[in-house]
Amino acid sequence: MGGPLDKARNAEMNRKAAIIGGGVIGGGWAARFLLNGWDVGVFDPDPEAERKIAAVMSNARLALPALSDVPMPAEGKLTFHGTIGEAVEGAEYVQESVSERIELKHKVYAQLQQAHPGVLIGSSTSGFKASDLQKGSPAPQNIIVAHPFNPVYLLPLSEVSGSPANPPAVVEKTVEIMKAIGMFPLVIRHEIDAFIGNRFLEAVWREALWMLKDGIATTEEIDEAIRMGFGLRWGQMGLFETYRIAGGEAGMRHFMAQFGPTLKWPWSKLMDVPEFNEELVDLVAGQSDAQSGMYGIRELERIRDRNLVGFLRSLKESNWGAGKVLLEHDAARAAVFNAEMAKGLDTAAKAAPLVMYQGQVLPGWIDYNGHMTESRYYFVNSETVDNLLRTIGAGMDYVAAGHSFYSAETHIRHLGEAKLGDQVRGELQIISADEKRFRSFVRVMVGDTCVATIEQLCLHVNMAEGKSAPASAEVWAKLKAIAEAHAGLPLPEGAGRAVGQKK
Amino acid sequence: MGGPLDKARNAEMNRKAAIIGGGVIGGGWAARFLLNGWDVGVFDPDPEAERKIAAVMSNARLALPALSDVPMPAEGKLTFHGTIGEAVEGAEYVQESVSERIELKHKVYAQLQQAHPGVLIGSSTSGFKASDLQKGSPAPQNIIVAHPFNPVYLLPLSEVSGSPANPPAVVEKTVEIMKAIGMFPLVIRHEIDAFIGNRFLEAVWREALWMLKDGIATTEEIDEAIRMGFGLRWGQMGLFETYRIAGGEAGMRHFMAQFGPTLKWPWSKLMDVPEFNEELVDLVAGQSDAQSGMYGIRELERIRDRNLVGFLRSLKESNWGAGKVLLEHDAARAAVFNAEMAKGLDTAAKAAPLVMYQGQVLPGWIDYNGHMTESRYYFVNSETVDNLLRTIGAGMDYVAAGHSFYSAETHIRHLGEAKLGDQVRGELQIISADEKRFRSFVRVMVGDTCVATIEQLCLHVNMAEGKSAPASAEVWAKLKAIAEAHAGLPLPEGAGRAVGQKK
Repeated sequence: MGGPLDKARNAEMNRKAAIIGGGVIGGGWAARFLLNGWDVGVFDPDPEAERKIAAVMSNARLALPALSDVPMPAEGKLTFHGTIGEAVEGAEYVQESVSERIELKHKVYAQLQQAHPGVLIGSSTSGFKASDLQKGSPAPQNIIVAHPFNPVYLLPLSEVSGSPANPPAVVEKTVEIMKAIGMFPLVIRHEIDAFIGNRFLEAVWREALWMLKDGIATTEEIDEAIRMGFGLRWGQMGLFETYRIAGGEAGMRHFMAQFGPTLKWPWSKLMDVPEFNEELVDLVAGQSDAQSGMYGIRELERIRDRNLVGFLRSLKESNWGAGKVLLEHDAARAAVFNAEMAKGLDTAAKAAPLVMYQGQVLPGWIDYNGHMTESRYYFVNSETVDNLLRTIGAGMDYVAAGHSFYSAETHIRHLGEAKLGDQVRGELQIISADEKRFRSFVRVMVGDTCVATIEQLCLHVNMAEGKSAPASAEVWAKLKAIAEAHAGLPLPEGAGRAVGQKK
Repeated sequence: MGGPLDKARNAEMNRKAAIIGGGVIGGGWAARFLLNGWDVGVFDPDPEAERKIAAVMSNARLALPALSDVPMPAEGKLTFHGTIGEAVEGAEYVQESVSERIELKHKVYAQLQQAHPGVLIGSSTSGFKASDLQKGSPAPQNIIVAHPFNPVYLLPLSEVSGSPANPPAVVEKTVEIMKAIGMFPLVIRHEIDAFIGNRFLEAVWREALWMLKDGIATTEEIDEAIRMGFGLRWGQMGLFETYRIAGGEAGMRHFMAQFGPTLKWPWSKLMDVPEFNEELVDLVAGQSDAQSGMYGIRELERIRDRNLVGFLRSLKESNWGAGKVLLEHDAARAAVFNAEMAKGLDTAAKAAPLVMYQGQVLPGWIDYNGHMTESRYYFVNSETVDNLLRTIGAGMDYVAAGHSFYSAETHIRHLGEAKLGDQVRGELQIISADEKRFRSFVRVMVGDTCVATIEQLCLHVNMAEGKSAPASAEVWAKLKAIAEAHAGLPLPEGAGRAVGQKK
């Protein structure tokens, strides 16, 4: 089912990453690299590694592409290897995600650096400093921390933390690679155990364990306290920006004055650490079973992913926080896609419909019949026509300058069904056009099946005057060229129909 | 512009709450009560209180209704009073949100209980226990903690914390009131300073202040570390459910085994508290200005609200966490609305189009021209027709039993524009119907202006056989009654048109 972009990408040489350790974190990294078109070589002695990574990939394939408004590149090639040396062959980057044992990590680095001297190694360690990781290495400068958060294929944060042994070029290279796979690299200024994120998580974890132990709340009640309140805030602003608002019109200083004194109040048990013993483990695990045991882990993962996709898409709509990262990643990839689209336009001379949209049916697009909800077929048409407009020079800049095409009238036939995860394509044919209007006919395709057709009349409008006006000469020339090429195509079956009209 | 629900509600006697203290938190409570149809009496000696609450209300009016899929009740009446006694008159509940000074709170309670003995008082205190608040009161049993999170009109959490002096009936009454205004009351099992949420926030706050002081990260970097990573997780699952997943297939015990030992590691500075002095305040406030100073507080609030609305709507789509709270609140209110809709159906005998949808244009519905995006007009039609189907007994249960109406063909005319925040209405007329199909004509109205018309042919389908079939006798009888009443209406202008057809 590959689109034009797939072909473009397959023609190039893929970049390659090696993944050492294929658990939840290693698998998440593998998925992110693969879905961004990198080849991935995996080393993990666990005989279950292949199955485990396949499970992560099947989640990731549903989720990550749902964040993209630019077609994804063709998936990279995934290979499994019996030795570290084989896995790292040809790789420009290694992500190490083995257990948190420093001797094990040192052993892995030694093998990597022997097989592929000079390769850049990022570690997923939750807490070791880069200088700890680098000890005993012949090339400490190539070992750095790149600490992600689960699920790695959805959450953008990668804490990049080097030691004084890492030259700026190594940090920059790590940042470049993180950005290439759509992550948000946060370079930490000074080495510190557990970096930033895990220090907060550790603080909350300690406090939570005290509350459980003291019978103040159950695991479920603690989770509700988080996700019904400040958890919602923190996905879009962090701690300080949130508190700045809490200070109201008087701002951050007012907030500090109000809550500063609480530092001395008995609001925390954090002066002490609860004893970690079997009894505590039983308490936590038992309550967690009562809370979430009705869901399997895969089910919980999919629920989580669906929610995260919803959050991230909503941030994307407001170009804010993690949504900004997604938009920037799209923009970088759109350059490639647009070049392909422009080539697609050359085929107009060959009198063929233009493929102007490719996308994936997202969870929020489904109705209670389990099909893509009817208004989303119209949405696919809108995206298809908008891409045509961008291509002929009538995009956002043109609108900003005061002209736009407005939809006047639309006719839709529902001929089949698109389902969750389907790749849908919008193929556009111009039926007629003049300086002031055009009639388009879009076929919404799933593979070779036409699931809907949309016929539409768009009027060119001078927005300030609020009335119909001729398009600019440049726009009209491009539109005319397409219309002339399409004049040779047969009038599509179903064009010109009224609702309920006999055939 | 009031719909049928407004009239129903205005006919009843509204419930009333008193708000003592009208700052960010008190104003947020006022907004939540008012938008849920309660009358609100405010006491706040600040001469700016009226302006401040108006500012919160104007944010809340944009945000809270955007979460509802059932028409909102008519806003309650807001009054300002010069004394606590006047504000509390006729109120069944008081929300106290004055400064965190215990003597002040005691003084307020004394006046409240003198003016209105027996009134239930909930406190927004960030940290005082109910037993602290109750000291010296003649009726300690009526004072309880109901601790919210900012913005109160959007975040559902209310920590309800009583002392042994509060009888179960008082806790239950508080829970009932919180649910009536769409909140999620979390009853805390044992009294503890700062309850649950603020203990976590305090732990993170302390850790963050250390990082700033030690120059590890700036306020902006700390915020990025939160909102690009675990902050996104916490809005939909909390701490424990997230870690359950992190344990992978081996679950919570595996996670505990892996991360338990970190309790002994130097991952936290929480054994000590940074000194709170001018230098620290300057550092935080200065960095916060650099990070967010380009936005005004009102602007930041609207960005935050828009993001939260996006998160909450996406949780609503998956019936999860805070989204489940919203759906349950909708369901409670839908009973009232559906009764009105059923009455609306009687008017079919009077041959008038049926108002089958009322809703608000949400931020995600806007295109780059600043108008409601074209596919959303079709969405309004879908909601309108779906409500008709529910009303004639062809809703979810009918679909679950194997029958459904499928859209076959649709014609849309775009006649005007709906804008962000507009209330849109779907008015439905049946043009023709038989056992196997109906043709509907929906006018999308903004006030008295028709902004779009949608003509649609729907076929009744036996889903298992995948073909057209007659509707059940009950459904057809109801549909037929409407069709016969509408037979007397003139054929709408624009019905039967093909795209681009001359008038």
